[in-house]
This record gives sequence, C-alpha cells and structure tokens, in this order.
Amino acid sequence: MCEHHSIDIDMHPEKKPRTPRSEQEKKQIINRLKRIEGQVRGLQKMVQDDRYCVDILIQISAIQAALKNTGYSLLERHTKSCVANAVKEGEGEHYIDELMKVIQQFSK
Amino acid sequence: MCEHHSIDIDMHPEKKPRTPRSEQEKKQIINRLKRIEGQVRGLQKMVQDDRYCVDILIQISAIQAALKNTGYSLLERHTKSCVANAVKEGEGEHYIDELMKVIQQFSK
Amino acid sequence: MCEHHSIDIDMHPEKKPRTPRSEQEKKQIINRLKRIEGQVRGLQKMVQDDRYCVDILIQISAIQAALKNTGYSLLERHTKSCVANAVKEGEGEHYIDELMKVIQQFSK
Amino acid sequence: MCEHHSIDIDMHPEKKPRTPRSEQEKKQIINRLKRIEGQVRGLQKMVQDDRYCVDILIQISAIQAALKNTGYSLLERHTKSCVANAVKEGEGEHYIDELMKVIQQFSK
Repeated sequence: MCEHHSIDIDMHPEKKPRTPRSEQEKKQIINRLKRIEGQVRGLQKMVQDDRYCVDILIQISAIQAALKNTGYSLLERHTKSCVANAVKEGEGEHYIDELMKVIQQFSK
Repeated sequence: MCEHHSIDIDMHPEKKPRTPRSEQEKKQIINRLKRIEGQVRGLQKMVQDDRYCVDILIQISAIQAALKNTGYSLLERHTKSCVANAVKEGEGEHYIDELMKVIQQFSK
Repeated sequence: MCEHHSIDIDMHPEKKPRTPRSEQEKKQIINRLKRIEGQVRGLQKMVQDDRYCVDILIQISAIQAALKNTGYSLLERHTKSCVANAVKEGEGEHYIDELMKVIQQFSK
Repeated sequence: MCEHHSIDIDMHPEKKPRTPRSEQEKKQIINRLKRIEGQVRGLQKMVQDDRYCVDILIQISAIQAALKNTGYSLLERHTKSCVANAVKEGEGEHYIDELMKVIQQFSK
C-alpha cells in the first residue's frame, strides 16, 4: 500500500480554484458525495447484517467507481479551468507538474 | 467506465459468510467504514468551502486507498474462511470462480 | 511509484507450480506473451515514426490490458491448482497469504 | 474486462505531435520500450522453464509498472507540449477533452 505517497503533493488549505465554483456546481458535487456517503452507510448495515463477503466487496467496488467518476469530473473541471487559464497566463509549468502528480496519485 | 460489469456477479441478499463474523470483527470493519463515511462528509465540506481542486482530489484518493484496504481485509477473510472451507469440503470450484470475478471487479 | 514494493514478495527461482504446466498450457501462455512482445515492438515503431502521443498512449493501454488478462489467467490457474491443493493438504495458510500479497501487487 | 472501450478514442495514423520529438527523445523512449520487450521475452522463458506462478505474476506486475511509467512520461510531454500549445492558441477544448479520455483509459 502506498497511501503515504500522497504527501508528495502539498495541501493548500487557503487556496481556491482560479474560477470559483458556482453554487449550482457545488450542489451537484455535494449531491454525488451525499449519495456516496449513503452507500458507505449501506455498507455498514451489510456488515451488521453479516451479509455475504462477496456482496460487500461488490458494493465497495461500486463505491470506488462512484468516487472515481466524481474525481474525474473534478479533474476535468480543474484542467479546463485552472490549468488552462494558468497556461494562457504563462504559469502553466507549475500547474501541469501538479496535474501530472495528481493523475499518478489518482490512478494508483 | 465499466460499472455495469458489476452485474456479472450475482448478489445474494440472504447469503451469509460460511463462518459468521464475530461481534468484534463486525465492530472493527464498521469502525473503518465510519471513518470513511466521515472522510466523505469532509469532502462535502471542502466543496462547500470552495477548496482548491487538487486538495479535494488528494482527499478522494485517500478515501479510495482506505476503501481498498478495507476491501482487501474482507477479501482475505473471505479467502481464508469461506473459500478455504469450501475447498476442503470439495466445493472449491464455484468459490474460486467467484473469487476470481470479484478480484477482477475489485482491481479495475 | 511503488515498484520497490514488489520486494515484499520473495522470488523462488527453483520453485515450480504444484501441478506442472502441460506443454499445451505453456504454449498458450507463450503465444499470448509473443503477441504482447510484438505489440511492444509496434510501440517502438510508433515512436520512431513520431506518431501522435495519444495514439501511443492508447496502444500502451491495450498492452496493459493484454498483460492484465494474461496475469488473471495465471492467477486463476494458480488458485485452482496450487492454492486449492495446498488448502486440501492443510498448508493453505501460507499459500493464501502469498496469494493476497500478489493480488495487492497485481492490482496496483 | 473493458479493452473494447479503447475505441472511444479515435486513432490518427497520420497525426504527429505538435512539437516533433527530437532524435534523443525518441531514443530514450525506444530504449525503455526495448527493456520492456526484453522483460516480456524473459516472461516467456519463465513459462518455458515452468517457474512458480507467483514469480511470473510478480514479473508481470514489474512490466506493468514499467509500461505505466513510460506512459506517464509520454503523457507529461504531451500535456506540456501539445496540450499547452493548443490552449495558448485557443484550441484547448478539444485537446483537453481528448486528454481526459486518455487519462481515464490509461488509469483503468
């Protein structure tokens, strides 16, 4: 397992997207995440009910797919907005390096 | 995206592990899932606060790693208990076929 | 990147499968690997011809899928033959631990 | 398995990178691919010698890591050169859409 590799990329608690997310955008992403949260709670119930291991694993894999898809949406928005704008303004290098790192991290 | 492939494996709502999970086992898994649920709620807050895209993606990737690890624990328990017992009792074929499918599903 | 993690699993140069591969089995796997070798040579030609980056990446991803499928076949054979026999003979523990490690390694 | 999904992205046999690869760049990539080709031939010998399944799987996983790394290098070069230039010249949209598809394809 290589979770510790995530520290290769610095977190930036005060940083915002170059183009702020609209309220509607936020709502869409949050709704997807709420569904995922519900799926994780569903998993807990499956364990509580001592459901068959394979069924739980299939459910975990569905949640992973949902997280991955949400991640791709964010990645696409980031590339089209933040990275593209940085490139246009001549600051692309740093943003592309960071993008490559996050893609590697994300596709592990 | 290939989530629809999950239907290759049937769900078995009434099926239980061959060896029931002890209360302590259940508790351990549920605790891990509760932490993951908390992380998913944390993601929602990050989106609400319009946090930087890359930070959100790193956090998604941490949740994916946590889910994967939980899945591996369940997979190991399933193999050591359900699959191994089925093999000893001469019903291994079906269990191993199912195991291979779930591994493929899980490592997508 | 985490290739160094592969050292978690020991190599066993003198070890054989518990049930030897038949000549036909060997031939089938080797044929798949020869096709993959040909695809890797094809990649070199694409680079030499200065083909478009995305086309090369698609081709790399096709080779990865072919390798993954070959790996799954070997994994299935290993589980049905080596692991299942070890379980029947009461030596399952070690084989299942090793299987779990190789699955983790393989699905990274 | 989802290899057929690769057809989502069109191949462009006549298309070149926006900035041609230098001879040195080509040589470096080809050398990496030659090493991978050698590893695939090594796999064939392992099968021929009836080597232990797990050892072969570890070796497959090492080849996958090498291919993945080569892919990342190409992806990075593509993003820094082709995509960034297209963005600067106002044709970024198409290139970023294609980039997102290839990342999804590649991280499956």
